Amino acid sequence: MREVYIAGVGMTKFGRLERGQLELFGEAAMDAINESNLKPKDIQALFLGNSVSDLDEGQTVLASHAASEIGLDHVMATRTEGACASSSIAIIIAFVMVGSGFFDIVLAGGCERNTASPTALATRIMNTGPHHRYESPTGITFPGMFAMMAHMYAKKYGVSLERLKEWMAMVAIKNHKNGAKNPKAQFQKVITMDDVFSSIMVASPLQLYDCCPISDGAAAVVVASGNVAKKLTNKPVQIIGVGQASSGGLSTQRDYTLPVARVHSSRQAYKMAGLKPEDIDVVELHDCFTIAEIVATDTLGFTEPGRGGIAVEKGETEIGGRIPVNPSGGLKAKGHPVGATGAAQVYEIVNQLRGKCGERQVEGAKVGMTDTLGGPFASIGNIILKRGW
Amino acid sequence: MREVYIAGVGMTKFGRLERGQLELFGEAAMDAINESNLKPKDIQALFLGNSVSDLDEGQTVLASHAASEIGLDHVMATRTEGACASSSIAIIIAFVMVGSGFFDIVLAGGCERNTASPTALATRIMNTGPHHRYESPTGITFPGMFAMMAHMYAKKYGVSLERLKEWMAMVAIKNHKNGAKNPKAQFQKVITMDDVFSSIMVASPLQLYDCCPISDGAAAVVVASGNVAKKLTNKPVQIIGVGQASSGGLSTQRDYTLPVARVHSSRQAYKMAGLKPEDIDVVELHDCFTIAEIVATDTLGFTEPGRGGIAVEKGETEIGGRIPVNPSGGLKAKGHPVGATGAAQVYEIVNQLRGKCGERQVEGAKVGMTDTLGGPFASIGNIILKRGW
Repeated sequence: MREVYIAGVGMTKFGRLERGQLELFGEAAMDAINESNLKPKDIQALFLGNSVSDLDEGQTVLASHAASEIGLDHVMATRTEGACASSSIAIIIAFVMVGSGFFDIVLAGGCERNTASPTALATRIMNTGPHHRYESPTGITFPGMFAMMAHMYAKKYGVSLERLKEWMAMVAIKNHKNGAKNPKAQFQKVITMDDVFSSIMVASPLQLYDCCPISDGAAAVVVASGNVAKKLTNKPVQIIGVGQASSGGLSTQRDYTLPVARVHSSRQAYKMAGLKPEDIDVVELHDCFTIAEIVATDTLGFTEPGRGGIAVEKGETEIGGRIPVNPSGGLKAKGHPVGATGAAQVYEIVNQLRGKCGERQVEGAKVGMTDTLGGPFASIGNIILKRGW
Repeated sequence: MREVYIAGVGMTKFGRLERGQLELFGEAAMDAINESNLKPKDIQALFLGNSVSDLDEGQTVLASHAASEIGLDHVMATRTEGACASSSIAIIIAFVMVGSGFFDIVLAGGCERNTASPTALATRIMNTGPHHRYESPTGITFPGMFAMMAHMYAKKYGVSLERLKEWMAMVAIKNHKNGAKNPKAQFQKVITMDDVFSSIMVASPLQLYDCCPISDGAAAVVVASGNVAKKLTNKPVQIIGVGQASSGGLSTQRDYTLPVARVHSSRQAYKMAGLKPEDIDVVELHDCFTIAEIVATDTLGFTEPGRGGIAVEKGETEIGGRIPVNPSGGLKAKGHPVGATGAAQVYEIVNQLRGKCGERQVEGAKVGMTDTLGGPFASIGNIILKRGW
């Protein structure tokens, strides 16, 4: 495998957008291609993460239509799906396609449009993650799943729900504070502890402000070989480690506080990169619910298991802290257009490593990591990136 | 890229099956794993082609659930989607993953369950292929799309519709004759010219027997490096060429009689294999409608453009003919569970090259090819396989 770089990135604003997902992806993709000083005809393949285009827009063969839409005529075009991890997976496949020498320049990314559906349908659409035979019929939803995660976390570590809820609220406050500095975030406003605790209960102990929003959006990256990337840009970012792993549904997992797929995926990525958690300067991780950030911080090894909440309380995960988590605002404030999320995390880390993040810049960041969790903790992708210059 | 082989294959019977797609895939996958003299724990990744699991069964993260179902714990598991080409794409990615040395043993395949839906819903589900903004709203369906292909074919080559309809009927008769010799085919009965012409009109000039059925089923293959495959089996089959290409919807294409994505895809596959159409001994190609077989035969270079129908009439595409086409019965008689079709084509070619096809064996076949066409002629995968011993 040869060295693989990211030459350029693009991303739409996230939020409730009045455009279809092909148009959204086109915007992000053209930004990534332009930033790479390329033309569409230079791109040799497209891997496009998307979770539910068939349900949302009645569209399959999404990658072919998306390629055509931006003039990538007749390239290999593949949609990849692993729920929320869909576009992390797309980038991981692009990494192997380029690393192997099969292609030199590949476009990868993701898109999703979820706000066009009525709320009830959105809930049904989101709820395609659990095992459709054993789990969905029980009525389990994602808020319910992560509420169980919170209860299990409190019990395992002997923390009161009240204390855990405070930590969770601090995650929301931190990520909204970061999102307020991100012009592409869905929510760009700071919130208070009182806002969180006075919001409606969704699935105890998760209140409204513990939950990320339903969003539309897209993100894209140009993945290129070392030789090519260094000609295209003076700020290439190297992909130095990838990991992807899976598990079955909730009923197959013993401990939701350390999702087994994430344990495998992150260990693979660290091993490939030859790094440890303490070598990471900034991380974008999967905070679809506030408890999810605490669990991810623990599982990725940034905190001792059970200390993820204390780390938030101590400011260790703030921009400027020991390990800044979700400087973009995370899914919580930036938004979570499912299939776009993994690529949007890479977009943020690439810009952090380039020092282009303005008010939310993590100073001196040289190595960053992404983490995207799909379905019932059942599909996970991790990518480790490093300044290439 | 190192040499890549198929060590084992598995496939369910196709038809109206009373099982979910995870169970169907499990059956095919375990057959492929067992035939490869492996255990699930030996498999390092899963690529699973599937077109509409979200619409059909309300299931995303399908590959993770499918992996877990058969004990592939915590492997990289990815669903790939390119409509009918979904599992050809899965195998092509597996080819690169193994060829690059990233993995040694990968499971790839596909599954789909389409018969559980009422007919109207099945039509809607199938109709997710055309561009959802520019084409689906016009009311275009797949029968309509391929009917246009037939009209364009007749006009371009100066053939009367009556003559073309005879050729198309001969495709149906040939493929049913082959399917009658395939115990896994959905339809195992021979039909006559009279059966075809007395069947109901679906979309002129396509009558019922010009159309493949709605089906359930799954197929899987174990892809392995040369060193590994040769230890596992004394009949490994080598993947010597792959091609995959795309195009936009119908409105972006000038000539439906030579789909541009297939031109690109097949040329790539031939080039990688270092072969020409005349070097292929047997082909499984995308006969979702009878006209589709004639067009595919032309476009893949087995016949001069415009001669695909005459070749059928002369028996050139029969088992025993110059270039046997669809000895399995093809989509027309074997059935077409969308996401499974590409892998099922590979299943047939592998068994043809092994000489294991009994009454439908193409004698002495050493090199075979598959061809899968997805959506509005917009996603195509081709795979060329060769006897490895």
